[in-house]
Amino acid sequence: MALAMPPTPVSSAWTRRAFGICAGLLATGVIGLGGCASSPASSGADALPSWNDGPARQAIVNFVNQVTREGPGYVPPVERIAVFDNDGTLWSEQPLYFQFVFMLDQVKAAAPQHPEWRSHPAFQAMASGDHAALAGNEKAMLELVLAANAGMTAEDYDSRIRAWLAQARHPKTGRLYTDMVYQPQLELLAYLRAHGFKTYIVSGGTVDFMRTWSERVYGIPPEQVVGSFIPLRYELKDGKPALVRQPGMDVNDGPTKPVGIARQIGRRPILAFGNSDGDLQMLEYTAAGAGPRLALLLHHDDADREFAYDRQSHVGKLDKAWDEALAKRWTVVSMKSDWKQVWPATK
Amino acid sequence: MALAMPPTPVSSAWTRRAFGICAGLLATGVIGLGGCASSPASSGADALPSWNDGPARQAIVNFVNQVTREGPGYVPPVERIAVFDNDGTLWSEQPLYFQFVFMLDQVKAAAPQHPEWRSHPAFQAMASGDHAALAGNEKAMLELVLAANAGMTAEDYDSRIRAWLAQARHPKTGRLYTDMVYQPQLELLAYLRAHGFKTYIVSGGTVDFMRTWSERVYGIPPEQVVGSFIPLRYELKDGKPALVRQPGMDVNDGPTKPVGIARQIGRRPILAFGNSDGDLQMLEYTAAGAGPRLALLLHHDDADREFAYDRQSHVGKLDKAWDEALAKRWTVVSMKSDWKQVWPATK
Repeated sequence: MALAMPPTPVSSAWTRRAFGICAGLLATGVIGLGGCASSPASSGADALPSWNDGPARQAIVNFVNQVTREGPGYVPPVERIAVFDNDGTLWSEQPLYFQFVFMLDQVKAAAPQHPEWRSHPAFQAMASGDHAALAGNEKAMLELVLAANAGMTAEDYDSRIRAWLAQARHPKTGRLYTDMVYQPQLELLAYLRAHGFKTYIVSGGTVDFMRTWSERVYGIPPEQVVGSFIPLRYELKDGKPALVRQPGMDVNDGPTKPVGIARQIGRRPILAFGNSDGDLQMLEYTAAGAGPRLALLLHHDDADREFAYDRQSHVGKLDKAWDEALAKRWTVVSMKSDWKQVWPATK
Repeated sequence: MALAMPPTPVSSAWTRRAFGICAGLLATGVIGLGGCASSPASSGADALPSWNDGPARQAIVNFVNQVTREGPGYVPPVERIAVFDNDGTLWSEQPLYFQFVFMLDQVKAAAPQHPEWRSHPAFQAMASGDHAALAGNEKAMLELVLAANAGMTAEDYDSRIRAWLAQARHPKTGRLYTDMVYQPQLELLAYLRAHGFKTYIVSGGTVDFMRTWSERVYGIPPEQVVGSFIPLRYELKDGKPALVRQPGMDVNDGPTKPVGIARQIGRRPILAFGNSDGDLQMLEYTAAGAGPRLALLLHHDDADREFAYDRQSHVGKLDKAWDEALAKRWTVVSMKSDWKQVWPATK
């Protein structure tokens, strides 16, 4: 797509906040100075054109109004931390996590140098195109991938990711993977930032994978991407510093998502958006803080425009988190009912 | 001190950059809108009043001018990452790292519940006030501390740090530890931010310790503090989410500083400031990137106003990094010659 960022109407009528918004937009380069200096105030509803006017959108707008307007629920800008899961929340995750597809392509490319892989169950599942078996063998496949990348520098790995993203396409839509992001979420990210929020990704995906495109596509800079981490070792190669990939992975998923948040952000978020059981603890942790909180859960119920899956899915399973969302009255977002449009326009 | 942040003159004559600066200052709340709208341009030299007009200050001002003005060395704001070591670079570190003093006080307070500690060499060194032996037993002492804090929640630990910082005072100066920060560095941090830099701490200290005061004292928010990390485990205590401290520590020092930068920031800094061998790799990594780079090393040569120590010191040893600084022509900052004033005014 030419530009994933939607236009961002300035949406506060209060002078103090309007200038805070100007500052944020100037800093991110979303608007030029002319837009800031004149800063026409418009209603928040205009900022979410791909969201239908239903309870989910209303909950979002009410929450943002509450924390940004003076009153009992006011939250200062530095504490407006919003965290988003990535796979299945900001972009699609079916039929396999996209980073996993990248890893499979890496394994395929490296396979000729590894004849011993032929007897590996994960490799066989890949060769036969058995998605369910592959998803079940994710950990074993990860081992192959880590072997394929052992000793690679962070810079070389970065180049491989970029090369892959530039040409690989989704099997169902034919889109580039970075065009498989959700238009309503791009609008929501921009809307939150326009109201002084700092938007973060908190994902099970690895930071190196996401950071190659998160800024361009979501407007989320590398330092606001929290994810799984492949250990690195600092080395001098011919006197030149290099960060070399090591075996293993520090996984950021489920109960380690709040740990990743504590480690990298150091503040409890006031808004969290997820879509699967891997987001349960992040939502729980966010919702349990003092003051206004918004916990959102995307339900994939739109087989026509995207995919429909929940309790039985082998990718992005939504079971316990759904029960807890219902019990605790978190906001469940229905893709089918709440989203007017799913995909951004492509060029 | 009432307010550690010095006044920050806006220091660019170019309209585009001037507005970028306005945005940054508005966002951090350093200036109100009036200051931004009028944005009087003044020279960068005014922004560093506690720096003597010598080669170090000139190197800083030249570098900032180079990366912020259009031309071959221009660096876009998102890439203006500046990393600062903390102990001995932003605040003092003698006669013992201040976090270590806090830990010792924790151990003393917990000692009555641990009679087995009496035979521990680190505990004996502490009891006899033997600083050299204590510094040499840092690792062993850390084990006592971690035992003292096992099972504590992150929130409880945070309260202990705050209570300690509110009353503990430095043995030589009688200042609160948070008043043992360096005035020239407070000015430098603000000067860099006013020129679109994002300022980070990258320290061997733990993030939980530094984050309780880094924003108030340095203007550096929690998410811009990179440091050692005590593992946490997510637990539900009576249905309430808690992060519970675990044994061990992921150390961020020496060769793991560039790894911590890659993990949390995801971009190579263009400016690094350190003072000891623990900063060698961070400086090396920063300096080795493409384009303009500034590597700065503080030399503690001022026994009258602070402390004088380098190659032989058991805390903040400066030996290999000094040699490399001289060999690679990094900027060595002499506390004695380059700093007009060391400490901020206290109220």
